[in-house]
Amino acid sequence: MTSNFRVEHDFLGEKQIPLEAYWGVHTARAVENFPISGTQISAMPDLIRALAHVKKAAAQVNAELGVLDPKLAGAIILACDDLLADQLHAQFVVDVIQGGAGTSTNMNANEVIANRALEKLGFEKGRYDVLHPNDHVNASQSTNDVYPTAVRLALWSGIERLLEAMAFLRKGFEAKALEFKDVLKIGRTQLQDAVPMTLGQEFLTYAVMMGEDEARLREARALIQEINLGATAIGTGINAPAGYSDKVCVRLAEISGIPVEKAANLIEATQDTGAFVQLSGVLKRVATKLSKICNDLRLLSSGPQAGFGDIKLPARQAGSSIMPGKVNPVIPEVMNQVAFEVIGNDMTVTMASEAGQLQLNAFEPVMGWSLFKSITHLGTACMTLQTNCVAGIEANHELLAKRVRESVTLVTALNPLVGYEKSALIAKTAMATGASIGEVAESLGIMTRVELEALLVPEKLTQPMALVRAPSA
Amino acid sequence: MTSNFRVEHDFLGEKQIPLEAYWGVHTARAVENFPISGTQISAMPDLIRALAHVKKAAAQVNAELGVLDPKLAGAIILACDDLLADQLHAQFVVDVIQGGAGTSTNMNANEVIANRALEKLGFEKGRYDVLHPNDHVNASQSTNDVYPTAVRLALWSGIERLLEAMAFLRKGFEAKALEFKDVLKIGRTQLQDAVPMTLGQEFLTYAVMMGEDEARLREARALIQEINLGATAIGTGINAPAGYSDKVCVRLAEISGIPVEKAANLIEATQDTGAFVQLSGVLKRVATKLSKICNDLRLLSSGPQAGFGDIKLPARQAGSSIMPGKVNPVIPEVMNQVAFEVIGNDMTVTMASEAGQLQLNAFEPVMGWSLFKSITHLGTACMTLQTNCVAGIEANHELLAKRVRESVTLVTALNPLVGYEKSALIAKTAMATGASIGEVAESLGIMTRVELEALLVPEKLTQPMALVRAPSA
Amino acid sequence: MTSNFRVEHDFLGEKQIPLEAYWGVHTARAVENFPISGTQISAMPDLIRALAHVKKAAAQVNAELGVLDPKLAGAIILACDDLLADQLHAQFVVDVIQGGAGTSTNMNANEVIANRALEKLGFEKGRYDVLHPNDHVNASQSTNDVYPTAVRLALWSGIERLLEAMAFLRKGFEAKALEFKDVLKIGRTQLQDAVPMTLGQEFLTYAVMMGEDEARLREARALIQEINLGATAIGTGINAPAGYSDKVCVRLAEISGIPVEKAANLIEATQDTGAFVQLSGVLKRVATKLSKICNDLRLLSSGPQAGFGDIKLPARQAGSSIMPGKVNPVIPEVMNQVAFEVIGNDMTVTMASEAGQLQLNAFEPVMGWSLFKSITHLGTACMTLQTNCVAGIEANHELLAKRVRESVTLVTALNPLVGYEKSALIAKTAMATGASIGEVAESLGIMTRVELEALLVPEKLTQPMALVRAPSA
Amino acid sequence: MTSNFRVEHDFLGEKQIPLEAYWGVHTARAVENFPISGTQISAMPDLIRALAHVKKAAAQVNAELGVLDPKLAGAIILACDDLLADQLHAQFVVDVIQGGAGTSTNMNANEVIANRALEKLGFEKGRYDVLHPNDHVNASQSTNDVYPTAVRLALWSGIERLLEAMAFLRKGFEAKALEFKDVLKIGRTQLQDAVPMTLGQEFLTYAVMMGEDEARLREARALIQEINLGATAIGTGINAPAGYSDKVCVRLAEISGIPVEKAANLIEATQDTGAFVQLSGVLKRVATKLSKICNDLRLLSSGPQAGFGDIKLPARQAGSSIMPGKVNPVIPEVMNQVAFEVIGNDMTVTMASEAGQLQLNAFEPVMGWSLFKSITHLGTACMTLQTNCVAGIEANHELLAKRVRESVTLVTALNPLVGYEKSALIAKTAMATGASIGEVAESLGIMTRVELEALLVPEKLTQPMALVRAPSA
Repeated sequence: MTSNFRVEHDFLGEKQIPLEAYWGVHTARAVENFPISGTQISAMPDLIRALAHVKKAAAQVNAELGVLDPKLAGAIILACDDLLADQLHAQFVVDVIQGGAGTSTNMNANEVIANRALEKLGFEKGRYDVLHPNDHVNASQSTNDVYPTAVRLALWSGIERLLEAMAFLRKGFEAKALEFKDVLKIGRTQLQDAVPMTLGQEFLTYAVMMGEDEARLREARALIQEINLGATAIGTGINAPAGYSDKVCVRLAEISGIPVEKAANLIEATQDTGAFVQLSGVLKRVATKLSKICNDLRLLSSGPQAGFGDIKLPARQAGSSIMPGKVNPVIPEVMNQVAFEVIGNDMTVTMASEAGQLQLNAFEPVMGWSLFKSITHLGTACMTLQTNCVAGIEANHELLAKRVRESVTLVTALNPLVGYEKSALIAKTAMATGASIGEVAESLGIMTRVELEALLVPEKLTQPMALVRAPSA
Repeated sequence: MTSNFRVEHDFLGEKQIPLEAYWGVHTARAVENFPISGTQISAMPDLIRALAHVKKAAAQVNAELGVLDPKLAGAIILACDDLLADQLHAQFVVDVIQGGAGTSTNMNANEVIANRALEKLGFEKGRYDVLHPNDHVNASQSTNDVYPTAVRLALWSGIERLLEAMAFLRKGFEAKALEFKDVLKIGRTQLQDAVPMTLGQEFLTYAVMMGEDEARLREARALIQEINLGATAIGTGINAPAGYSDKVCVRLAEISGIPVEKAANLIEATQDTGAFVQLSGVLKRVATKLSKICNDLRLLSSGPQAGFGDIKLPARQAGSSIMPGKVNPVIPEVMNQVAFEVIGNDMTVTMASEAGQLQLNAFEPVMGWSLFKSITHLGTACMTLQTNCVAGIEANHELLAKRVRESVTLVTALNPLVGYEKSALIAKTAMATGASIGEVAESLGIMTRVELEALLVPEKLTQPMALVRAPSA
Repeated sequence: MTSNFRVEHDFLGEKQIPLEAYWGVHTARAVENFPISGTQISAMPDLIRALAHVKKAAAQVNAELGVLDPKLAGAIILACDDLLADQLHAQFVVDVIQGGAGTSTNMNANEVIANRALEKLGFEKGRYDVLHPNDHVNASQSTNDVYPTAVRLALWSGIERLLEAMAFLRKGFEAKALEFKDVLKIGRTQLQDAVPMTLGQEFLTYAVMMGEDEARLREARALIQEINLGATAIGTGINAPAGYSDKVCVRLAEISGIPVEKAANLIEATQDTGAFVQLSGVLKRVATKLSKICNDLRLLSSGPQAGFGDIKLPARQAGSSIMPGKVNPVIPEVMNQVAFEVIGNDMTVTMASEAGQLQLNAFEPVMGWSLFKSITHLGTACMTLQTNCVAGIEANHELLAKRVRESVTLVTALNPLVGYEKSALIAKTAMATGASIGEVAESLGIMTRVELEALLVPEKLTQPMALVRAPSA
Repeated sequence: MTSNFRVEHDFLGEKQIPLEAYWGVHTARAVENFPISGTQISAMPDLIRALAHVKKAAAQVNAELGVLDPKLAGAIILACDDLLADQLHAQFVVDVIQGGAGTSTNMNANEVIANRALEKLGFEKGRYDVLHPNDHVNASQSTNDVYPTAVRLALWSGIERLLEAMAFLRKGFEAKALEFKDVLKIGRTQLQDAVPMTLGQEFLTYAVMMGEDEARLREARALIQEINLGATAIGTGINAPAGYSDKVCVRLAEISGIPVEKAANLIEATQDTGAFVQLSGVLKRVATKLSKICNDLRLLSSGPQAGFGDIKLPARQAGSSIMPGKVNPVIPEVMNQVAFEVIGNDMTVTMASEAGQLQLNAFEPVMGWSLFKSITHLGTACMTLQTNCVAGIEANHELLAKRVRESVTLVTALNPLVGYEKSALIAKTAMATGASIGEVAESLGIMTRVELEALLVPEKLTQPMALVRAPSA
């Protein structure tokens, strides 16, 4: 009679492992210990691939430095290549929220790779006497250098996609800026009517914001390119052969295509999570900006009859289960919510970072998971924002033109000519009486209506030096 | 040739829907619009069941009030019962992060229920001319009352489980408090040795904390029992028949078993999310406390040779991929991370609440999702904390006893007898010389060693009135 | 030759203290150690008075229990009475942000009271051989019970004033609700036009919100009424005479007029700061709500020409240094900023609470200071919001009436009569063509314009049961 | 009979202003409107000087471009020089928390400068017909460019001081790293004993952290060097003469000595507050790191008898009002609290930034105030941390040496020689029996005690390649 299990052991005792499982006893313990969120680390394929890159680079360098049998190294490398080809990801079953500073994730990888490598060598899974998850797959390594390095690689890849999504959205704003470059409107400060501008200027602002945020995100990404591989347990490099750290960091950059670099001080790099906090802070900045932009889009499209009505967002779905024909700004709304989530995630990352103690921060798993969510959701939200909203925005030409014609705030431009106090008098009187500012200026004997209207050409008021004159004039 | 699709339409046009799908055109639009997190609302089975309860109660009351054909109502109720039996949950495919104030979730429910009800009536899915998602399933309702009501029901159920998990953990602490009631130790303030106490007193503290937090959570839960069902679009009850609101709230309480009550002011209740903020704030309190307790457990078990070493946590898994035999406090660590997540979620909820505008808060989906995660993860973490950690904690009897014997801080109890300044002199001298406080007291001529040791019996120092005497003594 | 100094000493050595200073060596050390913010604890007069209440109650009970010479107790009480009469507050010179769990604040109080008491007894300041800050003023006490108790008393008093300010604002909203009870308007959800309501209903909502928040704040205040006086160092009551704790808590309630109660478990109460977190969470809730209300006021008053324009806020100051006549919603804006500050303070409190370790939380000073700011600023902001803004709000009657007349969203009320799909068709056509919904309904043959207008009387649409009919109709 | 008042007016009417006041009617209104915190903007002298720099640069350029009478410009410049010499700062009486996007602060400056300039010209205060706060002092300006520019200048100066304080602290850590470079100790991960390192390596880590944070802070400071002066109301430059913006930005850099640069897009720069969010995020990073370091210092110095005891912090004040001789880590504790405050401030800044709408962010006052507090308090806390704590830290040589001698974790270094599983067996047996790892290794027949002790020389284990050998060995 055949069993469906193999028996593995660790220092706590023996444990039955399903025969088909590539993971082993350490993973099984972790699954029992951390039944927290129900989401497994396989939800982060970038992380699985990153672990494979790290283990592959380590195996290559270990073999070159003579601390790993080349035959075992070869099998390990083949197993890593399977992970890089997106095979076996379902074997990464540890919960995304886990204690132990990533040890369970690292051991999950060590075990899956060991068992896959054993198969490549013609052995059954579990033959750790031949190829051992710790002694061979994890050779010259510790969770404390492998895990943060893998998290950094994974985030790097995620940021790459986020940057593409942000650029996609930025170009959408740029296209709208061009489309609306001649559409005059009244700008608003503190939600009150201010002075004229173009709708194109308004949308160009959003493009500029995105462009700046892309630059900031690239800078933050550069910080996480610094890795501590070779640090082993606490940064002193114990158990790694001399020269290993330099070689493995270079190798990892080569095979992953990600420009990682060895940190200058490995002890510091092993315990410090400042780069995660800074990255999270920049993602918070991006979120803050995107939320502000979406707040604006919702304001500008408010109405259709009792709101600002400067623009119309494309209808994407019925807005209401009860109000027929209602169209809501659902796409900006989802970005707002992603932004709130990202800001919350930043708090999680901040607390986890602050809680690090002495030679290690044990809370990197929740940092990695939080950053993963922030990066991924910002990216998907940028894509839907551009595709399903910004691309289809239309200007409400007639209403905008009417408001510019009737605007009392144009009086601002008279300041340099007649002074703040007389200008204020014109504005106040016009608002109170409903008369045009030209009529008021004339009736108050400040200037004739014709003079005023000749001066206050809105097109000229969207740039400096419209009406300024010398103080003696 | 048969098609695999049926055609549905909304005011944006037609759309092909897979024949087997119970969801319809509105859900399909939402899936296209919100490809954000990849997690579908079916991840919250409590929410699906809550929606079924709401729709069932509405159908019953609508039929009773004569605004819904009893035959249609009957079919809707049967469909709801299927959802309550955990069938068809996989049909709830909208992303957990979605724009539109929950409209897509509500429409997903309306469509699934309508199509299931049509089947019950012997019609094919999509025959909305017979039974319509909006006109019949959603009759007398709006997303703006259905969705917040369902979220509240779902959270209520989740809190019930969390309270059970907290009580389970509390009892674990109580058991340890009893077990350790006679184990003397030196208490610590500001990480510095303070005065004696028992290890049982220390663990009882954790039980008391949990008990208080259970009480606070119950109070917060009572706030979300207040619902706005019957408010419809903005709280005025437009399109609901007179008397509907009172009846449907009572009915919902009956069929759900959850003591919901109709809010006093439906317009306020429709736009206000204060109860979510308060609930989230209380969850943050719980998280803060659990994190503090786990920080303590990690501190108290630090070592084994170079730490506090007051207690030993049970070994649950190998602690390190490189350091053999190392055992880490992985279970408290996972609770710390859950706590950080919950505190981050609170920030998300707070921002989403603050962003509500005028007659509605459009950001309830991210509030619901964040609260769901906080409640669920706190509960699972409490369970593993008790089962895999607290239950197996052992006292380090010998070390604790030795420290009490040698403690310089016992000198505190001399204050009332010899005054703060002489006591300080004894303490300082003892620390500097390594002599016992008895020896020092004697050598300084303050009192004899025998007198001092007769006075400073640690067991007596864990309660008031050990050595206090009249000031004239 | 006379000196301007007296010499005091502690276990670190001697120190010159200005002759006129009532504080002593411990305070002097603290001033040197904590030159952080430049704001002294005298900025919180409630805290000084609370400390005086605590020290007075302790002196009375100590004398009664025979552990303090009645003559010394009498002098201490007189000194406390001076503090209660707001004398000598300038002697509280320690920085509001300080290490040491409040020890420096407690010692500042002990020293000021001791020296004042010495004067009452006819001695010079510094004669601690006669009356000692630790042995007599602090008798039966520790910072660890005195400080949290005093902070709680002080916050209680502050909350009393905040509750008054909130009630003042609530009554303002109630007055406006009455004033505007017949002013019809179009409600808005997701910034899009929704269904009719009255402006009175809108303002009543704000009053209801405030009322609920007052209730929540009262509940949170009750939590901080629980004190740990008598706990001394870690809650075991070491050095306090038997019976002291019960007596002193009752006495404190009597002389302070604040209904404090002794905590059930003093060890737990000494280390736990959950009540501060919960209070802060409720203040965050209040802030969130006030911010939402102010966001609404700013939205509703946006314009004057290119905004919502439902209401006018009273002009309080020139809005711009460049745009003449511009009036901005500066009062709501200041409340928004206070709200953001309070939410930030909550984060500070949360982190400080989570960081507590073992038998004490060393970070209560920053909790107390943060809560003090939140409570005070919310109160002052509520006062200015009512006085300088809400009281003077006017409705824009003509515009509101016009919008109700022309509104397409009234079509919602046809749902029960003609179904969601036909209603949607009417709405969409009306918006596209600019025709009235009556004209559209007629042209589409759904009903005559006269029928429709007879049905859609806005006044009836602000409550349930306007148009609902049986489904067979 | 002489009056103590002069009468000023604005568009709301007349107001009595005390004769001695340099501020005027706009300031008086603001004082009435914003009685929030009781702290006046004079609490930020950097901000007053920054405003003076801006107004001076504007006056110079206005005169050069012919839009301001040179005589008036000259008087304005003299008035600004008085402010730069720290005169009249007490005239800046507006509350630090204020509505209106900084308009009241700008007008307070305009009025003080106008009245001071009038005096310089020989006129009485209030003679705005001669020299007007808006028309002349504020010429070519708006609050919306003046205020953010001044806030940036002020923060820049504050950061300069913070960087000096951080460098001071970093050098302190570097000195300790050198002092402790040969002190062996057992490193700790997850609060459990790990592998050997030197105390010097531990302190060097803190120096490296500080150094990196200084670099990050410099980068963040560069972002706030980008200013929008010349943008006027919304960034279009309305009312500013052509060429003004370029000139005034260059001039401001010259006279302030701060390398400010004109933003590329003034409309974006006027509404965007991303640089504040990023700066705040970096300050949060700094806070997180400093808090972690102080947590470490408190842990490492825990004891004296029942803690880690690796180091001793210098005694700075009596630690307890009840426990004689107790010394607490009060200096690290105050830094922790500052860190919590900074993290809270970051939340305030984030919310204020997200709340910006359309062409302006009205909430810059609370951003500026929050950043000012974060920068100032981090700086003062760094100074006291170095001076009153780090400089006096001593190693506990004997205890550290004893622990290294007895450490079981040295077994880690055997991994490459005997494999993870045998090493784990040695470790587990040694801990259970109390025998040394040498004895255990010998009794288990793995290697002789002499062999093992010859291999496990702790000094060699603090770097790579201690014991690694080829896998075939």
